[in-house]
Amino acid sequence: MVAPLAGPEIERLVQLLSKLPGLGPRSARRAALALLKRKETLLEPLAAALQEAARTIKTCSTCGNLDSTDPCAVCADPRRDSSLICVVEDVADLWALERAGVFRGRYHVLGGTLSALDGRGPDQLNLGSLVERVRKGEIKEVVLGLNATVEGQTTAHYVTDLIAPLGLTVTRLAHGVPVGGELDYLDEGTLAAAFAARRAM
Amino acid sequence: MVAPLAGPEIERLVQLLSKLPGLGPRSARRAALALLKRKETLLEPLAAALQEAARTIKTCSTCGNLDSTDPCAVCADPRRDSSLICVVEDVADLWALERAGVFRGRYHVLGGTLSALDGRGPDQLNLGSLVERVRKGEIKEVVLGLNATVEGQTTAHYVTDLIAPLGLTVTRLAHGVPVGGELDYLDEGTLAAAFAARRAM
Repeated sequence: MVAPLAGPEIERLVQLLSKLPGLGPRSARRAALALLKRKETLLEPLAAALQEAARTIKTCSTCGNLDSTDPCAVCADPRRDSSLICVVEDVADLWALERAGVFRGRYHVLGGTLSALDGRGPDQLNLGSLVERVRKGEIKEVVLGLNATVEGQTTAHYVTDLIAPLGLTVTRLAHGVPVGGELDYLDEGTLAAAFAARRAM
Repeated sequence: MVAPLAGPEIERLVQLLSKLPGLGPRSARRAALALLKRKETLLEPLAAALQEAARTIKTCSTCGNLDSTDPCAVCADPRRDSSLICVVEDVADLWALERAGVFRGRYHVLGGTLSALDGRGPDQLNLGSLVERVRKGEIKEVVLGLNATVEGQTTAHYVTDLIAPLGLTVTRLAHGVPVGGELDYLDEGTLAAAFAARRAM
């Protein structure tokens, strides 16, 4: 039996860091060491930032985004088009679209996709609140910004069936060749979709 | 100009997380989101563990290890052989040797290597305290557990010149074929070292 490496404080820190996506047990140990070596400049500010986040960040009761205000900055922004909603799977997707800065409407975060395999049904998604928002009548178009995976597309069809009868336009993002992408590296599904949706020059 | 994604609290958290080794800006964002989604089970415990570490972990004034006690658990353990010291570059190396459980002496952490390129001279390393420990006379052998890099070996020679005149044995770790390693993948330097140090079967 090897003696413990260091106090339980360090082991606990390593164990928690290893739960972060992108950090395994070994890199969590490296990260813990980096933190302990830079106590004033990294460890203490990170501890404070985490506590501040725990205290202030909440889920927006309208769209499901994470922000320090409720409604979130996107829902509260009067300059955004409230007749247009983009439905996304996850807050990460909302952030990705915001970074791209291509969408000036509002969002709705489902919090996942339907998945028969993983036992996720409609009840696990924020669908009730979406229907409620649509029923208020202000929304003219819902853009389904879901991943182009089997689960994303299953969810897209389910959401369409749910809200299309309420009398509004339901669209989805276009499939095609990614900008900057080379045909040689693309799968057949993408190439077929790009052909089918070809545009006049 | 794109509107800020979320409150400054999240941006600050992402910025600090991206300073950890192994996390870039994109994976730091993913990690921040994972933390915010698991507030009770991950974010708050991590904040508490960081604060606890900031409060309790200090550098051992004898060997330079990080622990919640000073002297550290290794220096304070009466069962360890205090006539044997292993000199390592970094606390990570000390931990690696402890995980392997192959060494029952004590350690001395230099806190780096000599590097003319990066402007690190002997003054930046914990060499004074090493000489002081050796001068006390209890130590019979110093094992240089330094990396087999140019900088590690330069440092090994410097440390040898510094302490060998004080009348004790100075050794270094053996070079050779890593256990489980295949010759085909090894560099010429390792193979040459393994040949030169070959043993009778």
